[in-house]
Amino acid sequence: MVKINENYLKLPGSYLFSEVARRIAAYTAAHPGVTITKLSIGDVTRPLVPAVIQAMHKSVDEMGTAEGFHGYGPEQGYPFLREAIARHDYAARGMDVKPEEIFVSDGAKSDCGNIGDIFGTDNTVAVCDPVYPVYVDTNAMAGRAGDYVEALGRWNRLIYMPCVEANGFSPEPPKETADLIYLCFPNNPTGATATREQLKAWVDYANANGSIILYDSAYEAFITREDVPHSIFEIEGARTCAIEFRSFSKTAGFTGNRCAYTVVPMELERGGARLNSLWNRRQTTKFNGVPYVVQRGAEAVYTPEGRAQILENIAYYQRNAQVIREGLTSAGLACFGGVDAPYIWLKTPDGMGSWDFFDLVLDRANVATTPGAGFGPSGEGYIRLTAFGGAEDTVQAVDRIREMLRRG
Amino acid sequence: MVKINENYLKLPGSYLFSEVARRIAAYTAAHPGVTITKLSIGDVTRPLVPAVIQAMHKSVDEMGTAEGFHGYGPEQGYPFLREAIARHDYAARGMDVKPEEIFVSDGAKSDCGNIGDIFGTDNTVAVCDPVYPVYVDTNAMAGRAGDYVEALGRWNRLIYMPCVEANGFSPEPPKETADLIYLCFPNNPTGATATREQLKAWVDYANANGSIILYDSAYEAFITREDVPHSIFEIEGARTCAIEFRSFSKTAGFTGNRCAYTVVPMELERGGARLNSLWNRRQTTKFNGVPYVVQRGAEAVYTPEGRAQILENIAYYQRNAQVIREGLTSAGLACFGGVDAPYIWLKTPDGMGSWDFFDLVLDRANVATTPGAGFGPSGEGYIRLTAFGGAEDTVQAVDRIREMLRRG
Repeated sequence: MVKINENYLKLPGSYLFSEVARRIAAYTAAHPGVTITKLSIGDVTRPLVPAVIQAMHKSVDEMGTAEGFHGYGPEQGYPFLREAIARHDYAARGMDVKPEEIFVSDGAKSDCGNIGDIFGTDNTVAVCDPVYPVYVDTNAMAGRAGDYVEALGRWNRLIYMPCVEANGFSPEPPKETADLIYLCFPNNPTGATATREQLKAWVDYANANGSIILYDSAYEAFITREDVPHSIFEIEGARTCAIEFRSFSKTAGFTGNRCAYTVVPMELERGGARLNSLWNRRQTTKFNGVPYVVQRGAEAVYTPEGRAQILENIAYYQRNAQVIREGLTSAGLACFGGVDAPYIWLKTPDGMGSWDFFDLVLDRANVATTPGAGFGPSGEGYIRLTAFGGAEDTVQAVDRIREMLRRG
Repeated sequence: MVKINENYLKLPGSYLFSEVARRIAAYTAAHPGVTITKLSIGDVTRPLVPAVIQAMHKSVDEMGTAEGFHGYGPEQGYPFLREAIARHDYAARGMDVKPEEIFVSDGAKSDCGNIGDIFGTDNTVAVCDPVYPVYVDTNAMAGRAGDYVEALGRWNRLIYMPCVEANGFSPEPPKETADLIYLCFPNNPTGATATREQLKAWVDYANANGSIILYDSAYEAFITREDVPHSIFEIEGARTCAIEFRSFSKTAGFTGNRCAYTVVPMELERGGARLNSLWNRRQTTKFNGVPYVVQRGAEAVYTPEGRAQILENIAYYQRNAQVIREGLTSAGLACFGGVDAPYIWLKTPDGMGSWDFFDLVLDRANVATTPGAGFGPSGEGYIRLTAFGGAEDTVQAVDRIREMLRRG
């Protein structure tokens, strides 16, 4: 008799974004004619930029000819893309990351989930609280999270690191020894960043303990302040203790185009094994690479035109973030993030619960948000707003929330 | 200290196709000016058909406009594609497979590898011998294969089912109880098919033992004989014991375009859980769907024009298979497969070893093949030839091998 992976049965309820979608759908069904403005799911809305479109058309044409056809590509990504990434995302910022250390993939979500394959199930895992649910759920599936304790809203084997107002939503290394540490800066959901000194403390901790930092910098393109680090590899010592995840999703609007990459430095070894080799083995065995057409599209992001065009889109979203942050702050709400990130972390008024405030804003302002509690216990009392909507919609949504607050 | 997944360290040597590529590269480097004709790696060579190219161009254009842009799609695939698959690949052949049972993905390799996530590590796994290495390696990574016994070329916890001339390369259910059973028909590497009666015996065995058949039918489009089943779901009782993997790779030349799908019937339950829900949870947590442009390309395969065009390409490869089979059979070699499959399984002359014959054919005929021993112990004494090359190359390769045999 087949035994299923029992860990799956421990996963509580439905995935956060599904529940948000369900509530919105239910509300819309019950209130025909009402239009909901979404500041909830973190999906981009600006179309792909002309340089990417052009490159994709060109490569689609290639795929239709005998000479230009591309079959199986290297599982790790084509050299043209790995080299462009190394040059523009790393060398240009003074970091030495080699193309062989870069694994192109179909998404940071896939990579953050699949990276667990190469680690034992007996590692201790530390996550921020609140946290992007994928880190927690994938570890729960692997058995590293232990059991879910409903009353606490926590897994009993995970180390939760509260990210709260008092620590600027950027935690210090824990007292316990964590083996695998998920960090995400600029942060989803709080929009917080970490300083160079804070990251240095993490790198020192990881090197001292043999831990590995799984660093998600999917939002680095949104950093506006000069001194905020874009990559963990800007920090001395990171190459012996960190893996970095990046994505074209938010940087270049690739959420429906699917391209990302993961950096595993050659120096990174544990238990006598080079992690670059383990990840290479994982990817070559369970993955067959990203579509040629998509990789050509991603390459175009690094051309001068492509670069200029995506920066316009990022600036567009950054203006939205500013509108939300300033509009709601001036209405008396406490807002965090949104300066170096597309996310604004809003404290609910009067200590209201996340889901209650979510329902209230949905009903009174017809704006969809994401309840902070869905990202972990320390997210209770917050909601997440995203800057990925249209400019007019964003202005309107902020106005509606302000109006709702005025009405009291 | 981080513990790696120790199972990775048990994986022997390099992946079969890498070793083949390495030997070809070494030979080419040592013999400048010599051109190697590849009948080795199973990659297609015909370009994408015009209907697919058109659909991709159209959807690339959409992605460049605010109205037509598609961000995150459903992780399971867009309804337009799931419905087209259900209608054309199943309903048209009298099978009732619902769109909700179809999970669109980036590849059958990914799905065959990732499906293990939803099963416990203590299941007993049965594989054919010879076998597509991904089934074995992914189970080894999960710990289900036990330890690799170098002297036997086998893992000590896997059940190997020899596929040999005596059983027509189609094994009977084993005496032992296997929980997870990987079957692939038409088979890679042997090109063998299973009869309806043989599959019925498997389904009965699986239902009697609570086993699950993981049925890879990636090559079903190459079936020419009327009575050969295209899907495990043609067999009564399969919906309570089987998962099916299919791909656009060989059917429509999508090896560089990346699209496949997996069917998990709603009736399939084990340990009180619906496997469709478990796989849905796995995919929504660790995967973000296939690029919109690629899904539109895959949809075009089901239009009348698209269908006619891909059938032409399949017929082209089928003629290659015939050329290989007939050309080498008439030269006195024993050939199997190649009738309902793009693979020909060639018995080496004089009981020569697979790798020796590989080296001989590479050196004397300048033809690259794949050594049967690379697919498992029972593959020793065979090589695999593929029909995916150009027609002229295939004729030439066959001529060269015949010439080599004549020279003795």
